[in-house]
Amino acid sequence: MKKVSLISIGNELLSGQTVNSNGAYLSAELLSAGIPVVSAYVIADEIDAIARAFELASADADVVIATGGLGPTDDDLTRQALAKFLGVELELRDELLEKIENFFISRNRPMPAKNKIQACIPAGAKALANIGTAPGILAESRGKLFFTLPGVPSEMKRMFAESVLLELRPFTDTQAVVVRKLKCFGAGESTIAERLGTMMQRGRNPLINCTVSSGVITLHIVAKAEDRETAGQMAQRDETTLRNILGEWIYGTADQSLAEVVGEALARQQKTLAVAESCTGGLLAKMLTDISGATAYFRCGWITYSNEAKINELGVPDGLIAEYGAVSEQVAEAMARGARKKADTDFAISITGIAGPTGGTEQKPVGLVYMSVDSEKENHTNRCVFSPDRRAIRLRAAQTALNMLRQKLNI
Amino acid sequence: MKKVSLISIGNELLSGQTVNSNGAYLSAELLSAGIPVVSAYVIADEIDAIARAFELASADADVVIATGGLGPTDDDLTRQALAKFLGVELELRDELLEKIENFFISRNRPMPAKNKIQACIPAGAKALANIGTAPGILAESRGKLFFTLPGVPSEMKRMFAESVLLELRPFTDTQAVVVRKLKCFGAGESTIAERLGTMMQRGRNPLINCTVSSGVITLHIVAKAEDRETAGQMAQRDETTLRNILGEWIYGTADQSLAEVVGEALARQQKTLAVAESCTGGLLAKMLTDISGATAYFRCGWITYSNEAKINELGVPDGLIAEYGAVSEQVAEAMARGARKKADTDFAISITGIAGPTGGTEQKPVGLVYMSVDSEKENHTNRCVFSPDRRAIRLRAAQTALNMLRQKLNI
Repeated sequence: MKKVSLISIGNELLSGQTVNSNGAYLSAELLSAGIPVVSAYVIADEIDAIARAFELASADADVVIATGGLGPTDDDLTRQALAKFLGVELELRDELLEKIENFFISRNRPMPAKNKIQACIPAGAKALANIGTAPGILAESRGKLFFTLPGVPSEMKRMFAESVLLELRPFTDTQAVVVRKLKCFGAGESTIAERLGTMMQRGRNPLINCTVSSGVITLHIVAKAEDRETAGQMAQRDETTLRNILGEWIYGTADQSLAEVVGEALARQQKTLAVAESCTGGLLAKMLTDISGATAYFRCGWITYSNEAKINELGVPDGLIAEYGAVSEQVAEAMARGARKKADTDFAISITGIAGPTGGTEQKPVGLVYMSVDSEKENHTNRCVFSPDRRAIRLRAAQTALNMLRQKLNI
Repeated sequence: MKKVSLISIGNELLSGQTVNSNGAYLSAELLSAGIPVVSAYVIADEIDAIARAFELASADADVVIATGGLGPTDDDLTRQALAKFLGVELELRDELLEKIENFFISRNRPMPAKNKIQACIPAGAKALANIGTAPGILAESRGKLFFTLPGVPSEMKRMFAESVLLELRPFTDTQAVVVRKLKCFGAGESTIAERLGTMMQRGRNPLINCTVSSGVITLHIVAKAEDRETAGQMAQRDETTLRNILGEWIYGTADQSLAEVVGEALARQQKTLAVAESCTGGLLAKMLTDISGATAYFRCGWITYSNEAKINELGVPDGLIAEYGAVSEQVAEAMARGARKKADTDFAISITGIAGPTGGTEQKPVGLVYMSVDSEKENHTNRCVFSPDRRAIRLRAAQTALNMLRQKLNI
């Protein structure tokens, strides 16, 4: 199977001013095309460093794709570096110069002298269609392919789709990679890995990878085969097995969030929702209303940060707060019930806890959160202690509460 | 000057599933600390490939920082690769194992056997404070420093701030790069760039860079000198000039958010706040309560998504909604006034608008938002039409409303 190595060129990528989104874009596109990226290099605007990166990348892979450093200014050095790596000179190509001149004529602007360098490419190389003023370059050396593309994402994407994929067709037609994602919540990474056992072994095909973000575990099933249909069947078989093993921990697929899955179920079941938040301070409502169409099920939310607000707005008895404290099972339950009755909805979720960093005690440490889901039929309240980090506590509490509602909705 | 090379480890980075945000974060932080990143490698979860990346990175720089691959599963191979590169064995450290066991005990969960590997680090290396279950690692070899950090951004950032920067202090103290950041809101990037003129020229020292994120413009003043004092004075001189030129567009410094600046002023002036949100659905309250200590000024919030909620909870006259529509100056004003009276606070902010993508009309397009700030003395309502992107509309509306309150607070 053919492989790709990427080189991203530009000082701005190493100063943190720019996130390397080109790398992620190309990786995803190439994987779908069946030519996986096996390594990536981020390099400053320096000829020797770039030339060395071509050397390293071509040792890793059959195809090297470099982005950036094709502009007209003195810090754009990719074409010079490619020529140096190939051991050839840069040549001025008249037909490229004419295209660049026409670009400026069509804009009624004189062509700055500096743009002339963009008509130069290494001897023996091929120019890829100009987009903007910079043509891309394709060179072949030692049986490997070297592409250089502009760094501007819109230009890069167009040149990749219109030129690079065509050039790579001889490789892509003979390979097929299918990627499926399963999203899980409610179990830790290591618990899931233990359940999956040898399925997660390296070198297995399909390969199963696992990533974690705010409590959500994403399992990536990467199936490779000679044709797309076979790869799809292999991925499907693994998906079925994973669903059997992990059961209700799996809440969705692709890039679905818990809020999205819960929202879709509420809409489908024609149920309505209200929320009452203390320590999450609006985060849960924000996650629910991030989704367009939330209007169909989301009615009303209260952020009852103070005790007075819990009493006045949600009808939590002040005696309950005095006896058990605002962070307690009893108050969580009363908040959820109060919200549901006041908003006249089918469900209400409440969250009350200690997000910290201050305000914790020995009995009620920072990270202690009660989450309650109330419906006409029943009330269900959970107690959790999350790691003491304000942002993480709030996020985990909101996610856990959504997951509780998901279980009530039988999805 | 000391230099850093970064290694980002994880198949998900090469499959395009995850954008490498850790790389950008570390690059920016290290530049501020005066230790620039000169190269970066993205590597798959394979021992030999990771070990080779340590070799390459240490040829580029004095300090190597690797992220990812410290989890408990079989595809987490960074600690094994570091040991291989260093030519030593992995050692089980009892004190680390105890910490990990305690982590699970505190959560009332049995420790999965797989987590034991997280207590192993290369012989002779030093463990950096556990966050979650994975300790970071610091090893020294051939006069160079090698750090490995977790890949989860929140854990990585905390460990970087709490451990790595401390270990790097000997380098950062001997070099003089002073970075000041000024945060602006209320004017576009090009307007600010025009006002600053030649101050933004490349090659100038201090260098002034400009980054934009959700309407907030951050000006980075990067001053370099032989000693810290001189660099500090140069940065200070530029800061004063920028403050004169940009006036009240500058709302803060460093990494301050608008919510933070507004919150601090409310606390200092002993004023209280309530919010009433429609289209932002909890986002404004979430931004305000992201800040610990919000309890001092934030009392209560309403997410009145439906018309009924606006009427029942905030006392917006139903005639007003019938006459002007829920997205109108009149309703925004009534929402803010209702929230302030009900919560009995000094200020209230309301937001009502059309976040889309559906629900727009010719008169009231997607992106139309009314924001109102109410106090006993006065009411001030603004109308904005933001670019039609749901996420951006919500964020801009919340930021603009916070900026209105900032002006009322005279900060």
